[in-house]
Amino acid sequence: MPFLRNAWYVTAWSEALIKDPIRITILGEPVAIFRNDEGEAVALGDVCPHRFASLSQGKIHGDTLECPYHGLRFDRSGACVHNPHGDGVVPPGARVRSFPLIERHHAIWIWPGDPALAEPASIPDFSVYDRSDIVSSRDYLHVDAHYELINDNLLDLSHAAFLHPFLTTEGFAGRSRAKVEQDGRAVHSYLWNDDEPLTPLFRLVWDGDGDRVDMRSHMHWTAPSNLFLDVGITEVGGEPEDGPWLPSAHLLTPETETSTHYFWMVGRNRQPENDELGGILHNGIKQAFETEDEPMIARVAANMAGRDFWSLRPAILAGDAAAVRARRMLAKLIREEDQPVAQAAE
Amino acid sequence: MPFLRNAWYVTAWSEALIKDPIRITILGEPVAIFRNDEGEAVALGDVCPHRFASLSQGKIHGDTLECPYHGLRFDRSGACVHNPHGDGVVPPGARVRSFPLIERHHAIWIWPGDPALAEPASIPDFSVYDRSDIVSSRDYLHVDAHYELINDNLLDLSHAAFLHPFLTTEGFAGRSRAKVEQDGRAVHSYLWNDDEPLTPLFRLVWDGDGDRVDMRSHMHWTAPSNLFLDVGITEVGGEPEDGPWLPSAHLLTPETETSTHYFWMVGRNRQPENDELGGILHNGIKQAFETEDEPMIARVAANMAGRDFWSLRPAILAGDAAAVRARRMLAKLIREEDQPVAQAAE
Amino acid sequence: MPFLRNAWYVTAWSEALIKDPIRITILGEPVAIFRNDEGEAVALGDVCPHRFASLSQGKIHGDTLECPYHGLRFDRSGACVHNPHGDGVVPPGARVRSFPLIERHHAIWIWPGDPALAEPASIPDFSVYDRSDIVSSRDYLHVDAHYELINDNLLDLSHAAFLHPFLTTEGFAGRSRAKVEQDGRAVHSYLWNDDEPLTPLFRLVWDGDGDRVDMRSHMHWTAPSNLFLDVGITEVGGEPEDGPWLPSAHLLTPETETSTHYFWMVGRNRQPENDELGGILHNGIKQAFETEDEPMIARVAANMAGRDFWSLRPAILAGDAAAVRARRMLAKLIREEDQPVAQAAE
Repeated sequence: MPFLRNAWYVTAWSEALIKDPIRITILGEPVAIFRNDEGEAVALGDVCPHRFASLSQGKIHGDTLECPYHGLRFDRSGACVHNPHGDGVVPPGARVRSFPLIERHHAIWIWPGDPALAEPASIPDFSVYDRSDIVSSRDYLHVDAHYELINDNLLDLSHAAFLHPFLTTEGFAGRSRAKVEQDGRAVHSYLWNDDEPLTPLFRLVWDGDGDRVDMRSHMHWTAPSNLFLDVGITEVGGEPEDGPWLPSAHLLTPETETSTHYFWMVGRNRQPENDELGGILHNGIKQAFETEDEPMIARVAANMAGRDFWSLRPAILAGDAAAVRARRMLAKLIREEDQPVAQAAE
Repeated sequence: MPFLRNAWYVTAWSEALIKDPIRITILGEPVAIFRNDEGEAVALGDVCPHRFASLSQGKIHGDTLECPYHGLRFDRSGACVHNPHGDGVVPPGARVRSFPLIERHHAIWIWPGDPALAEPASIPDFSVYDRSDIVSSRDYLHVDAHYELINDNLLDLSHAAFLHPFLTTEGFAGRSRAKVEQDGRAVHSYLWNDDEPLTPLFRLVWDGDGDRVDMRSHMHWTAPSNLFLDVGITEVGGEPEDGPWLPSAHLLTPETETSTHYFWMVGRNRQPENDELGGILHNGIKQAFETEDEPMIARVAANMAGRDFWSLRPAILAGDAAAVRARRMLAKLIREEDQPVAQAAE
Repeated sequence: MPFLRNAWYVTAWSEALIKDPIRITILGEPVAIFRNDEGEAVALGDVCPHRFASLSQGKIHGDTLECPYHGLRFDRSGACVHNPHGDGVVPPGARVRSFPLIERHHAIWIWPGDPALAEPASIPDFSVYDRSDIVSSRDYLHVDAHYELINDNLLDLSHAAFLHPFLTTEGFAGRSRAKVEQDGRAVHSYLWNDDEPLTPLFRLVWDGDGDRVDMRSHMHWTAPSNLFLDVGITEVGGEPEDGPWLPSAHLLTPETETSTHYFWMVGRNRQPENDELGGILHNGIKQAFETEDEPMIARVAANMAGRDFWSLRPAILAGDAAAVRARRMLAKLIREEDQPVAQAAE
């Protein structure tokens, strides 16, 4: 299936783009990202139009990126502005693609589609991580699978009961109340578990009385693949706002048809100064993603062997409701993008 | 070339299937094998029909295998009999393939074809390894080659003179008398070497007088790829039954078009209590298979580069008679299986 | 693009072919090279026509090469002259291809095209390395790229200013005078840098006064991919013959469409007895080729992702003049070779 091109995707965490350019392949296309001398993040097509070297292996000169092979320099618009050879005239065609880029919510967002349609307001809202009362940390995972398989994984948290002992408790899935909603480009999967035993993860931040809590796990997906997990606990019958909260962002950027960049971020509203606690929470989650989710999803991808999801006629369970809606919504958006005229004629 | 599906293949040695499920790909299809709580071996399609996880990574619950991703459980017929989600109703289509499986002669045999045709009596006879006077050991080798190239290797033992110094003597091939026969689904390649010097292997078990013996090397191939080597020595002019005997089984199961599971077993009729001798014999043979045959066959496969054997117009030598008959018999069986109507109409 | 088959390519340095046969794939075809008992180098198709084993893994018997699998022996004409099996009759079709082979200028040259056209006189002239006043050393590099990308690299030395600090000086490229010529099957790229600071490499052999020199870098390419770099320095205004000279040969043999054997040789006309100096020069150049050129060219090949060079509509700079002429000349030669009738009709 083709990708949704007119959409925002994360290319890097802001803090990871410092001195050297970064090369990242998104939607099958290699991109060079760098900060110019004003600290502004710039994204250019990675392949020099002269001899096809990778600009991301080059050096930054002021507001330009210099090709490492023969020294052509490109500015933030993608134009070659310096040719050190011969009479120094820049030849026609010496130009690379430039991508709209926005730095927001600790991340650098890229728009691989039509630049004229790149609306910063359509970046999904992760402003919770900009709040002064939320401390957060970030990480990255490479997954050998099509990104929709990760959407599926995140939109059906019932898998946690079988795959993630640190994040759940025995029989958790069977005690959930569930609701699925959708609007615009979003699907929302709500789970509530009332009067539950504490999970090992939340035990680390629980500061209330007793061992039982109300827990909510609300996953918000925005097409094509940016997810926000609003997960928290409170005293039984209490108000959600009061309890410990561990909101996490799951920002999936297709690398190729068979691999995905998985950027994730986890925040907390407790003990902001306690770095040791932060490390334990971060690493507990990291271990679940890297040693439990990733191998499972990669195996699923290998078992599918490149075949289309629906062509395999999957059995559908109750917990698949949100993932199925997201798949259908995304397929529709991609069809509309690929056939804009037909769409207009409808 | 397609595979012969209506046939018995080995999937595992009995002693290797204990607690955990095993995943094995046969004829291009991943299969999960496990023992249920009654010790019965069961083979199911490995891919869960829900989200395509590998059942072989799951847990055994009584007589069912539980999917590691979302907990569906499948019984020995392949039916999903437990859904831990929502109302617990098992959705239509929640079913995997179940394979006929027979445990016999130390091995677990699978039938990848039409279950209605799976006749236990057609498992090749390796009952020699069930005899109380024969001690045997088993091993496994993965070969990066189409299984017919291993058939070829085993049906023309003249290669031993050039590849296996431990198994033969100088000039052995030139002194053999040969005969090839065929019947039903079998090809038999008989070699006799009379009044021969002892080979290094047989010297280890020789308990007669002198240094010269009569030796027989009789390879019996049953389509598609199960072979029995009846190899033994006796005093010059003596009766075969009396002499040392090292019968070996070579059970080839196609993994893919380009790789093969090679299960092998070697027995002896001498010194049943002598484990050290057993180890020396086993490892001498293992070394020949792993360091001499396998690299040679894998290189042949690489040199063929996916091209059909006959399309390469091979030069044919005297020693190829049995292998050529086996190739033709197998090709005929596969054609008949793929065109059952045409066959019936003949 | 197809290869130019009627041409001489290097298969090995003479000093590397001693006792054991060598396997090398050239133009996509595996070849076995060995020296027979008279020390004569012979090249045969590597794949035995019987069971497709690699002859290069076999043993040399007199003037024949014996197959390691079943012992057939092949002479220098490629004919099977010994069959150790059955009645010993050599079956029809037991023959491998034999390649014209010439040992000259420290190298073994092979002709993969029509043997009738193999003219030893058309081997490019590297007799400089046969001179008694030139000391030379040889090496080999495997490059993951189409050989024409290495032609491009060598025919445009302006890249040295950006990639090779050991071989050039700051701003070197901008101070060059350039001229390109072509004749027959050759393209010549002349660079002169007058009154230049010494490069780090030439500083090692400079024995004149002062720190400034005249430098010439003359690259001579012969189709399809044998290059000679005549690079030397002299006193400002002096005669080229008098100064230090480090002539190097760059002999590219296509392995496949995506990989190349890069044989190189460097000589010097100074301090012939100084082995330490020879080692320093050799290793300085080796490092530039292996850690600077090879990764760059392999990355370019990966960025091109199998697409044709011209289809990518490269921007052309002044320094590309020689490489573009070589590409066009080579394309023409390949077209003519592939369409000999059409050529004759022109």
